[in-house]
Amino acid sequence: MNRITFFLTAVLTVAGVVAFAAAESEHSDEEAAPIFGIKIPPGYRDWKLISVAHEAGNLNDFRAILGNDIAINVYREGKLPFPDGTIIARLAWSYVPSEENNNVFGRPQSFVAGAPTNLQFMVKDSKKYASTGGWGFAQFNDGKPADRAVHQTCFACHQPVEGRDFVFTRYAP
Amino acid sequence: MNRITFFLTAVLTVAGVVAFAAAESEHSDEEAAPIFGIKIPPGYRDWKLISVAHEAGNLNDFRAILGNDIAINVYREGKLPFPDGTIIARLAWSYVPSEENNNVFGRPQSFVAGAPTNLQFMVKDSKKYASTGGWGFAQFNDGKPADRAVHQTCFACHQPVEGRDFVFTRYAP
Repeated sequence: MNRITFFLTAVLTVAGVVAFAAAESEHSDEEAAPIFGIKIPPGYRDWKLISVAHEAGNLNDFRAILGNDIAINVYREGKLPFPDGTIIARLAWSYVPSEENNNVFGRPQSFVAGAPTNLQFMVKDSKKYASTGGWGFAQFNDGKPADRAVHQTCFACHQPVEGRDFVFTRYAP
Repeated sequence: MNRITFFLTAVLTVAGVVAFAAAESEHSDEEAAPIFGIKIPPGYRDWKLISVAHEAGNLNDFRAILGNDIAINVYREGKLPFPDGTIIARLAWSYVPSEENNNVFGRPQSFVAGAPTNLQFMVKDSKKYASTGGWGFAQFNDGKPADRAVHQTCFACHQPVEGRDFVFTRYAP
């Protein structure tokens, strides 16, 4: 190992340790979701956009689906299945009309994201979550994990899209 | 400058030149939007999410609003005005029902992003665009700039939100 290689290795190692320590201190007191043991992944709000959705009905929410870099690469290259380490984040907010935008458009037609409702994650680990298609599922309400009963429903709902590795959302170009 | 500093500078310079050359070659033959002379910013699809929206009515589209790092920092710190260099991207897709999702929910309630419709950008340059609140505006349909008449309408529509530096979208946490 020459001096430059050693220097670069040292810099990257220190950076990694600092990043890990920061992430740990930020999230160490958070609860993990039941059954799958998933915590809110640090930095998920900075991830790239996969697509958006609106669920009307009782939920009546607005959704953005983000992915870590592993997820985004799979979407862009179109090669399933998602590898271990993939995380997909589903953010949701209440679906609210925008008075301000409607005034500009001259009629009621604009809907925007209101207060956050809940947060969901799918985490791929083909060994750990072998019995649920290789995916762990987690939902958080106000930063707290939803209960066990909620988490028991996740996989069954995702089974109809087994052909897309259990992921509903398609990439919006 | 010692050897290590020189080496790192050289690496970063080469990387910068390569990135710049790649961006140029990818976009050099693209047309700029009329009036404001804006081209599609390289890498915009990787930017962080500001929020989502749905316009019903004639547009009937689904929107995601992304920002470059300068934009995102302003949103998160809450300190207006946006500085020069800010770019906000507004992606839009047709608003379509998802048969697949509706089957899972058991009733028609799910809407997702369909085909892309158009792409808009706001670029902050307080000198260049002094007469339009410091913002340049651009719209692209299928990668081609919309016509002059379209671009003449942008600023007037944004004037009602002058108090938020002419930007409609609020940050969705």
